[in-house]
Amino acid sequence: MDTAGKVIKCKAAVAWEPNKPMVIEEIEVAPPQANEVRVKIVATSVCHSDLYHLYEGMHKDGFPVVLGHEAAGIVESVGPGVTEFTPGDKVMPVFLAQCRDCHLCKSPKTNQCMKAWTEVSKDSLTGVDSRLSCKGKKILLFAGTGTFSEYTVIKQNRVAKIHPDAPLDKVCPLSCGICTGYGSAVNVAKVEEGSSCAVFGLGAVGLAAVMGCKAAGAKRIIAVDTNPEKFDKAKIFGATDFVNPKDHSKPIHEVLVEMTNGGVDFSLECVGSPAVVESALHSTIPAWGVCVIVGFNQVQKFSALPTDFTTGRSMKGALFGGFKSKDGLTEMVQRYMDKKIMVDEFITHNMGLDQIMEAVDLMKAAKCVRAVLTPSPQ
Amino acid sequence: MDTAGKVIKCKAAVAWEPNKPMVIEEIEVAPPQANEVRVKIVATSVCHSDLYHLYEGMHKDGFPVVLGHEAAGIVESVGPGVTEFTPGDKVMPVFLAQCRDCHLCKSPKTNQCMKAWTEVSKDSLTGVDSRLSCKGKKILLFAGTGTFSEYTVIKQNRVAKIHPDAPLDKVCPLSCGICTGYGSAVNVAKVEEGSSCAVFGLGAVGLAAVMGCKAAGAKRIIAVDTNPEKFDKAKIFGATDFVNPKDHSKPIHEVLVEMTNGGVDFSLECVGSPAVVESALHSTIPAWGVCVIVGFNQVQKFSALPTDFTTGRSMKGALFGGFKSKDGLTEMVQRYMDKKIMVDEFITHNMGLDQIMEAVDLMKAAKCVRAVLTPSPQ
Repeated sequence: MDTAGKVIKCKAAVAWEPNKPMVIEEIEVAPPQANEVRVKIVATSVCHSDLYHLYEGMHKDGFPVVLGHEAAGIVESVGPGVTEFTPGDKVMPVFLAQCRDCHLCKSPKTNQCMKAWTEVSKDSLTGVDSRLSCKGKKILLFAGTGTFSEYTVIKQNRVAKIHPDAPLDKVCPLSCGICTGYGSAVNVAKVEEGSSCAVFGLGAVGLAAVMGCKAAGAKRIIAVDTNPEKFDKAKIFGATDFVNPKDHSKPIHEVLVEMTNGGVDFSLECVGSPAVVESALHSTIPAWGVCVIVGFNQVQKFSALPTDFTTGRSMKGALFGGFKSKDGLTEMVQRYMDKKIMVDEFITHNMGLDQIMEAVDLMKAAKCVRAVLTPSPQ
Repeated sequence: MDTAGKVIKCKAAVAWEPNKPMVIEEIEVAPPQANEVRVKIVATSVCHSDLYHLYEGMHKDGFPVVLGHEAAGIVESVGPGVTEFTPGDKVMPVFLAQCRDCHLCKSPKTNQCMKAWTEVSKDSLTGVDSRLSCKGKKILLFAGTGTFSEYTVIKQNRVAKIHPDAPLDKVCPLSCGICTGYGSAVNVAKVEEGSSCAVFGLGAVGLAAVMGCKAAGAKRIIAVDTNPEKFDKAKIFGATDFVNPKDHSKPIHEVLVEMTNGGVDFSLECVGSPAVVESALHSTIPAWGVCVIVGFNQVQKFSALPTDFTTGRSMKGALFGGFKSKDGLTEMVQRYMDKKIMVDEFITHNMGLDQIMEAVDLMKAAKCVRAVLTPSPQ
């Protein structure tokens, strides 16, 4: 059946308003317009950022919305001006644009892109336009991707072409969490051979950060989480030490400083909590410690003394692990195909799109690392 | 007169207690002990850190004290185990130790030294021991140097040998403020050719930061101060733009972001104020801005959002501009001798030691950049 140029009717999980369960609806997906790609979503996973949007009070203009930004699929058709993709290409959406044209894209110093913030609202984190509608209402796309749907339409600057043999239901979590954590260790912290690291928070991002520290040659990787059930998984990815702040009466940074005789070389905050940022900063060795903020929080501030830095510490951050988004995703899928990174180990559940709220509940209860849903099985 | 091995009676400015004027007293300076050097102080200048100690409530154990840490002099005699110095050497004291033996000194990643904090109290910033006494009471040395005196005794790990032709009354301010500001631009921020920079605070440290930005090839150097009288001086050192926050109703970082179409590449906070740290951070371009904290403040905290960093910003800091202290000082004096850096331009007043309180008052009133005192003229 040739669907190109036609409206596709399909199923999607629609979040009609904040703090209410998503509802599986029949939606209409219009053909892609200029520089857009219509993608059949074969696999999509739930990331904390989706929950953050749904439950933690984003801008009211961000609804109704199709959430979802970690995904893999197949190009169904392309709009005018699309040169990078043809129907049948295996692709992955990515929340961070890479237009390749702006001064940011052309600089090796950043993975930001001017289009990242002109095509997606900074307030609501939803695309400013959408081809999706339901019951006559336009449905926004979270992160400009909106992948909790059988089909979606995404700007080509948020789509990466991947290896034609890549198993879509496996590589799916690479498109946000894994690249974010792994790249934060390798590209942002620039973890050094033989160094000591602390990773705070052992969700998918934190586990990927552990994997990145190990890939970079860290000698000691201290995994920190208040849920000790996560430690077994962290060990698989390379953690050497395990610390539960609840086991200690003193501030956790003091515990880490004692364990490492002065502080770790690198710390990665993978929670998005101001208190944890402060712990991560103070866990580093004053003379050269590097603290990387990975967790997303645009509401709550952390505090620090100028002298926390004037001893020689530094603090850094980046979205998507500092990877140029499309290029990095293509490269990381290749690394997976070459068996250089683990991905399968992040996937704890496989479900259908209609089980989306079950997946959300597992995530909220910290009972899964990644639940992969298959809206349009291959 | 051979004074080696004997107690030297000389004049010094003694601060008997906080918030009281220093008093010129006759003190006794015992011979240097192991690894110590007795130095005739030819020139010494007043730095804000001295005032901070005197007026802003340091630890009560920090008195009585001889303040002063920016200085230049001549070795009078050396204690047992001193290998680097012989009497007659031209030297400069430096507040930050460089023992050359500890794991920090041996690392290229820091200019910190284990001795920096074992031989000087972190609370009072005074040396834990002293050879100076007055009226039967031991007089502490601020920063382990105590240079507001005709003679002082300093650990050799806080003394740098300098070019034998160096004019001591000129190079004197290099031993804290100028190296701190210059190095913060060159070594810490690593200001890039053609970049844009903002320097907040135009005291000696800020002016030296401007000079460092210029030396590193910055294209645009925005000097920010609430006292417009400082702008002429900043121009001499290379500033290209001048901003007085009092001239604007909007937050000053917004003014700088507009001026630079998105934010400066590098900002340097040379005030030691949490509010200015926040302005400096937000003045940088989100995608790759580097904010360097130069000002010292171990009491008041600044705040920031995690998302201030996850766009790609970083924050750094270092003492003494990141220079390995003794080596850096020797090198910077050489650069002055080679006419590669300006120093004379920082010196606005020349006085005798007995005019110390006049120098302090000029500093407090922001009426001088550096007042150089000459306790023991050559």
